[in-house]
Amino acid sequence: MNVFFTKLQVRSTLGAIRHRISANRFASNKTVSDNTIRQLVSYATQAPSSFNLQPWRFLALTEWPDRHRLMKLACGQRKVVEAAVAFIVLGDLLAHSRLSDILRQSVKSGVFDESTARRIADQCNRMYADLGAQRDEAIRSASMAAMTLMLAAEAKGLVSCPLIEFDPEGVRREFHIAERYLPVMLVAVGHPASAKWQREPRLPLHQVLAFGVGWPWATESIETWKAARTSALVA
Amino acid sequence: MNVFFTKLQVRSTLGAIRHRISANRFASNKTVSDNTIRQLVSYATQAPSSFNLQPWRFLALTEWPDRHRLMKLACGQRKVVEAAVAFIVLGDLLAHSRLSDILRQSVKSGVFDESTARRIADQCNRMYADLGAQRDEAIRSASMAAMTLMLAAEAKGLVSCPLIEFDPEGVRREFHIAERYLPVMLVAVGHPASAKWQREPRLPLHQVLAFGVGWPWATESIETWKAARTSALVA
Repeated sequence: MNVFFTKLQVRSTLGAIRHRISANRFASNKTVSDNTIRQLVSYATQAPSSFNLQPWRFLALTEWPDRHRLMKLACGQRKVVEAAVAFIVLGDLLAHSRLSDILRQSVKSGVFDESTARRIADQCNRMYADLGAQRDEAIRSASMAAMTLMLAAEAKGLVSCPLIEFDPEGVRREFHIAERYLPVMLVAVGHPASAKWQREPRLPLHQVLAFGVGWPWATESIETWKAARTSALVA
Repeated sequence: MNVFFTKLQVRSTLGAIRHRISANRFASNKTVSDNTIRQLVSYATQAPSSFNLQPWRFLALTEWPDRHRLMKLACGQRKVVEAAVAFIVLGDLLAHSRLSDILRQSVKSGVFDESTARRIADQCNRMYADLGAQRDEAIRSASMAAMTLMLAAEAKGLVSCPLIEFDPEGVRREFHIAERYLPVMLVAVGHPASAKWQREPRLPLHQVLAFGVGWPWATESIETWKAARTSALVA
């Protein structure tokens, strides 16, 4: 029985990964409850983050006028209004300013002791003194949380689509988002439409995976790099 | 029976999200086969990416000397050598230079037609003429793929840990990685050690989720932002 359950569990988690697809259409007449939205975000926050800083923030837009305003800032992509909820996923560029609260909570829960907490705080402040490092981390963690949210949605029979074509400054202005929060992506979530579409093919595995130091693209020189860049831009 | 299966499936995908934890320890005497590594990366590539560019690349280090060299570039973090495999997850800054191949494949598979492909190509080239946009996208997509890989590992009874404290230029040099590939994070994957550790607590939901335009941190002015930044750095 145990073996059976394990096998089924394997298939179903991997099944969610295999079946998730970026939805082009949503059943626009169906809503998603605030409670479901809370659950989705609760799962999203189970993602890992550097020093447990949890820089992700989620602004959930369920009202049509809000989603309509967002659509106008997202190159008019209809998914934003057709989906039941559009999340603006933000990354807090100042997440490390909350570190002492976060560490205190971990000490209180017995995850580690006071002296470990002090060592972590030193390390973290050194690392995020750099503005570029803050920004990279905000994008990285918010993206991992967004991916987790989309798989949680899949598990709940919902469909989702990440959108990165939007005007981040416009979104910030329109929704009164403070400067410390970087709009990392939008995620539309809703019920599946009856229309079907096909999964886009993926690159063959040998083009994205290499073992050991036999990196197939290692020999590319900076000249090749520059040439590729130029040809990409003029194409 | 259908309902039962669906409920179980729901529980198990969400279960993997809830149970995954950044592993501190690995059973260092157990290996992970090349075939399993291929499967994990194959699942990782099911993540979504902008224009289906799939900018993720995975360098899998399974040999001890390779992982040992990597550990030295990752602040000596033992997880890198204790885990059975250490992935260097890269983001291709020139992913859009492969767009025509990718689009051709989609047209061939019947996902969309030639004229749609041409429209997508125009849009993509406009978007990624900007170096900053390329870099953000490389981090975003590689992070989503890494998250998917970690959940796939969880489903297969393995444990994982993302690491971002490492010297990216050193890693590039040591493993002969061409400049177009940005080291986004390391992911250690292996078998669980008998040692147990506790999940770090997450921020309460109301601190990371808001509905509509009632964004609780909207009123933060640039002055508050600057003050928070200063206090974070001097803390």
